[in-house]
Amino acid sequence: MKNIIFALNDHSPKYRQVYDRVKLLIEQKDLPENEQLPSIRQLAETLHVSRNTTLMAYEQLVAEGYIRGEGRKGYFVNELEPILVQDALAPPDKERKEPAPSVKIDFKAGAVDQTHFPLKTWRRLSNQVLTLQESFQYGEPFGEVCLREQIAVYLFQSRGVKTEPHAIVIGSSTQQLLIHLGHILNDDSDGVIIEDPGYDGAKEAFRFHQFAIETLPVYETGADFSQLEKLKSKLIYITPSHQSPLGVSMSIQQRQMLIQWANSIDGFIIEDDYDSEFRYTQQPFPALASIDSARVIYLGNFSKSFLPGIRLSYMVLPQSVVDRYKNRFLQFESTASLQNQLTMARFMEAGEWNRHIKRMRLVYKRKMQCLVSELRKQFKESLSIIGEQSGLYVLVKVHLNRSEEWLIERAEMDGVHVYPTSIYFIKNHPAEAVIKLGFSNLSCEEIQEGVKLLKKAWT
Amino acid sequence: MKNIIFALNDHSPKYRQVYDRVKLLIEQKDLPENEQLPSIRQLAETLHVSRNTTLMAYEQLVAEGYIRGEGRKGYFVNELEPILVQDALAPPDKERKEPAPSVKIDFKAGAVDQTHFPLKTWRRLSNQVLTLQESFQYGEPFGEVCLREQIAVYLFQSRGVKTEPHAIVIGSSTQQLLIHLGHILNDDSDGVIIEDPGYDGAKEAFRFHQFAIETLPVYETGADFSQLEKLKSKLIYITPSHQSPLGVSMSIQQRQMLIQWANSIDGFIIEDDYDSEFRYTQQPFPALASIDSARVIYLGNFSKSFLPGIRLSYMVLPQSVVDRYKNRFLQFESTASLQNQLTMARFMEAGEWNRHIKRMRLVYKRKMQCLVSELRKQFKESLSIIGEQSGLYVLVKVHLNRSEEWLIERAEMDGVHVYPTSIYFIKNHPAEAVIKLGFSNLSCEEIQEGVKLLKKAWT
Repeated sequence: MKNIIFALNDHSPKYRQVYDRVKLLIEQKDLPENEQLPSIRQLAETLHVSRNTTLMAYEQLVAEGYIRGEGRKGYFVNELEPILVQDALAPPDKERKEPAPSVKIDFKAGAVDQTHFPLKTWRRLSNQVLTLQESFQYGEPFGEVCLREQIAVYLFQSRGVKTEPHAIVIGSSTQQLLIHLGHILNDDSDGVIIEDPGYDGAKEAFRFHQFAIETLPVYETGADFSQLEKLKSKLIYITPSHQSPLGVSMSIQQRQMLIQWANSIDGFIIEDDYDSEFRYTQQPFPALASIDSARVIYLGNFSKSFLPGIRLSYMVLPQSVVDRYKNRFLQFESTASLQNQLTMARFMEAGEWNRHIKRMRLVYKRKMQCLVSELRKQFKESLSIIGEQSGLYVLVKVHLNRSEEWLIERAEMDGVHVYPTSIYFIKNHPAEAVIKLGFSNLSCEEIQEGVKLLKKAWT
Repeated sequence: MKNIIFALNDHSPKYRQVYDRVKLLIEQKDLPENEQLPSIRQLAETLHVSRNTTLMAYEQLVAEGYIRGEGRKGYFVNELEPILVQDALAPPDKERKEPAPSVKIDFKAGAVDQTHFPLKTWRRLSNQVLTLQESFQYGEPFGEVCLREQIAVYLFQSRGVKTEPHAIVIGSSTQQLLIHLGHILNDDSDGVIIEDPGYDGAKEAFRFHQFAIETLPVYETGADFSQLEKLKSKLIYITPSHQSPLGVSMSIQQRQMLIQWANSIDGFIIEDDYDSEFRYTQQPFPALASIDSARVIYLGNFSKSFLPGIRLSYMVLPQSVVDRYKNRFLQFESTASLQNQLTMARFMEAGEWNRHIKRMRLVYKRKMQCLVSELRKQFKESLSIIGEQSGLYVLVKVHLNRSEEWLIERAEMDGVHVYPTSIYFIKNHPAEAVIKLGFSNLSCEEIQEGVKLLKKAWT
């Protein structure tokens, strides 16, 4: 039995230091197997600490299996394979961040207006929610019933969709819901039809499940539904109210045709109603799901209309799908924040949601007008605007015989971030470059400055 | 051309009522195809509304495709298939709720203590976060860097795990992360070894991916690792620090053995460190991932130690997995609330997290002592307690020759909710009924009352 001696510092509890040092001696084989350790009293005296300190250190080492107590005989080192110790024990480095380029105006589409966010009301309600007993437990796997009730009322009033809370599933993003749906729907169809151009995030979710992907060409005037009968899939993903990204809305005739198609082949339509709240020239169109509830799976979210980071989305399932879905996912916890769900339910119940949508429609309408008129003023005929009736972005077709890449890079050099659309196109590529301009979190002044800078950069 | 007349009320905007009524007339074929509609002026006069009102209604109908304008000739009804109208247009019913039975004491395990929740600090920080510009955009797909940095520091200090923010992925639940991992890891292994008994939520996640499930028997004394070499899977899911549900901790020898096993077969260990913060008799044991970072995938969460409804979990991926994972999921938005992530990062950075864990360890330790001593006092030898060293629940083996079902039902009749453990066992069933008692959200008085009621119910 060797005695052990080392210096202790004041930076951490003494018993912890004793534990660490003895452990290291064992790991480094300085204390070989079956070696007897100094007694608790002996070690305490050597190190000038209390016996309680060495007792605690030894107990921890016993519990972890480094040493064993043999009653009155004392403590002994256990057999131990050489440990594959971590290279170094320095705390991890902070991740290096890219230096931010000096962007003055960012026409980013995935943000919402910050100035008109109902900060006080939301704070008040979310603070209330944190005092509820239910906030300290796990929530419902398919979403809180109080929020599902509010969504059912809202969908009926604003989108004509008649549903019941039990047919609604709350998730944390459209993509997450699509991935879950994919697990169910690839029993029905090996393939899926998606719009071309269309929302890339949906395409990725379907690719994830190895669905065979067929495309339906969409133009500024709408989708070419005559192509439908040539396709084999029994499932279509579509954005009828505000086509993503072209912005066109499906007419009632097209909607009926699509529903007849789904009925005739026993198929399903996934209707992504992602930003239907923001239609400026008319009332929002009734949803496909308001015409047929047996063939349409309706998807909605709070990302565009409220806050993307809140991570709340929902879907309305047809009766034939709801039980299959719930059986498959019954054992899984919800992925959506319980507190956010409870707060949103109160926000909706208090009428704040409708007020917010109404207010934001005006705010965004003004920004849209501002963007469109400045684009017309600066560019005149050298640029066409697509999708100014609704949504939180426009597309611009630039008649300057330049590539998308060139337009983006040139803008960047003058301090303006603009966004590509080529990621949305699969086969149906446009003849000219089309650029995406989001405006939701820019002021009118910023929008005007941004457009002026674009004019300078591009011409 | 017929004229149209109907009464308007004051409950909704007039143009909306005109739109609704004309739409209904078209859908019900009261206005047949190609019928000319009254002019804007004419209809306005008949209905005693302004021309602007009828214009807005017609424009909405035109936009949706119900009618068409033919310049000076006026408006005409479009061709329209009979609509598959929803049965009735009453607002949806509220979901019926089961009447709550009169439970006095609920030994539920999935809740946290509400009294000691750092309400003020959390509110203050989350209110701050809501004023940040980044709160109004989409977050990072793999979690906010600021939170990943804090988790890296925490894991190093408290669990000995040396990692970097880029190897950490933030998700919204352990199950969600396991499902994502499953997509990657079933390239490496067709099967998975899980503990028996073990966490049912993990089993479900693996079943979801159709992994062949092999079981490793676990007893009160620990897992029988001699069985490992008989198994074929290259992947094991395990809870080394606090076995779920038996509460036993793996010794350093077992840990080393397991890592050698993984190295020898090129396999992976998924270490679920789900509640390691709450060990009462010793310091928390270092994680498996602190011994080997190449073979261990480390899972942690904020559900037990902070708030289940916050829906924040994380994992640390070995270098060989991190790129595969990120390539596969690069196109997917995070499922975890951005605001919760930013708030938790600030909470940790301010030292509040460490303070919270320290405080809660004492709170729960006291509750554990209270539960254990009351169980001993009431039941003496007729009941054995399993897992009192750590965690937020104990298991009790009831030596009364009664079934689990009987024990639960009898308790229920006396107003006490207790929980089964049979769901955790696969083949390795215990000889006697084992009941789970969670105590985290009960006061000492409630715990004592609950145990007294159990005594009355069971004996």
